[in-house]
Amino acid sequence: MTRVRIDLFSSLDGFTAAPDPTSDNPMGDDWGPLTAAYAETRTFREKVFGDTSGAGTTGLDDAHARAFFDGVGAEIMGAAMFGLHAHPEDGWAGWWGDEPPFGCPVYVLTSSAPRAEISMAGGTTFHFRSGAIEEVLDEATVAAGGLDVRVGGGIRTAQEFLRAGLVDDLHVQVAPIILGRGNSVWEGLRGLEHTHAVKSEVSESGTIHVTFTRKA
Amino acid sequence: MTRVRIDLFSSLDGFTAAPDPTSDNPMGDDWGPLTAAYAETRTFREKVFGDTSGAGTTGLDDAHARAFFDGVGAEIMGAAMFGLHAHPEDGWAGWWGDEPPFGCPVYVLTSSAPRAEISMAGGTTFHFRSGAIEEVLDEATVAAGGLDVRVGGGIRTAQEFLRAGLVDDLHVQVAPIILGRGNSVWEGLRGLEHTHAVKSEVSESGTIHVTFTRKA
Repeated sequence: MTRVRIDLFSSLDGFTAAPDPTSDNPMGDDWGPLTAAYAETRTFREKVFGDTSGAGTTGLDDAHARAFFDGVGAEIMGAAMFGLHAHPEDGWAGWWGDEPPFGCPVYVLTSSAPRAEISMAGGTTFHFRSGAIEEVLDEATVAAGGLDVRVGGGIRTAQEFLRAGLVDDLHVQVAPIILGRGNSVWEGLRGLEHTHAVKSEVSESGTIHVTFTRKA
Repeated sequence: MTRVRIDLFSSLDGFTAAPDPTSDNPMGDDWGPLTAAYAETRTFREKVFGDTSGAGTTGLDDAHARAFFDGVGAEIMGAAMFGLHAHPEDGWAGWWGDEPPFGCPVYVLTSSAPRAEISMAGGTTFHFRSGAIEEVLDEATVAAGGLDVRVGGGIRTAQEFLRAGLVDDLHVQVAPIILGRGNSVWEGLRGLEHTHAVKSEVSESGTIHVTFTRKA
């Protein structure tokens, strides 16, 4: 049974870094501290950098990192996460490199003109869709073939799916820092605990992992 | 050695209830869910309701509740927490009842005209001060006689002391709920983790206890 999943990063005060894809530092100064514990996991090093030396943390942070990569059959992301705002030219293949770390169909939400799909090395195919999020989710669910659909971000896209009640599993990784600025992670989600069971765990790094799981 | 302590309640999204002391429900609808785990502790039942039956939770929530009441020699609070905004008349003794749950000198910050101190049953004496917070803290520290000074609230008073770097220990009890409204708990505190060590723990009730302790 396909589940719709979202993973987000937050500071203690509920902010995630506000990306600026047109900048030299597109994720901003706060992204590093916000994601430090994730970047230090063995799974991240292996999946993103191809580091098979076995280095990296192997505790609760790594367990959540593994879960992030496991069992995803299709991905949905906003135009900004693909990089369309910075590079609107047709045929641009995104800022995820020659072999993007998805390995599955990726549905990019865009309100701009239709564009052709782009197939990349490693099994990633970018599809561009301008329909309602429910329609795109239906298509992604079929494409996932029984695996899960991950809504990858950014934060506004994630919130759109969360507010529409389309998400089964939300994992928020809360770094023990106070940012005081950025995009609000939780905005518009008052009462989510009524429809989803909440569980919190603290990892060895002091990171709080909060998971919301849709109640039966 | 006197330490300056603050305890706050927060939702996952960083809000505390916005009180309205002129209302029939001065703490607002959100205060109950925000403080539910605290109200269920054995210590709260005993200290606030005089319930000595031994009922109430005895886990991590209760350990923090005990720590809240232990070793406080003087208290500082804002005018709104005393109730001055709703009852500006001279001689009004606050909304904390005939025997307030402090049992020590309480310094009420107010910019209004000087007023006489008020002695209550149970060892609480309310003093009204309009000086700088550093001066009031100095006086409270002397009055505490080696015990701790607790800055009781409200949230704006707490933030004033936190931003001025006057607080040694901050305990934030985070309820696993999303409020989406209220007063921001963390506002103006960016980077507090640089001066204070952060520790997070999850209790049996799913409450996250985040403590900041001033680094040596």
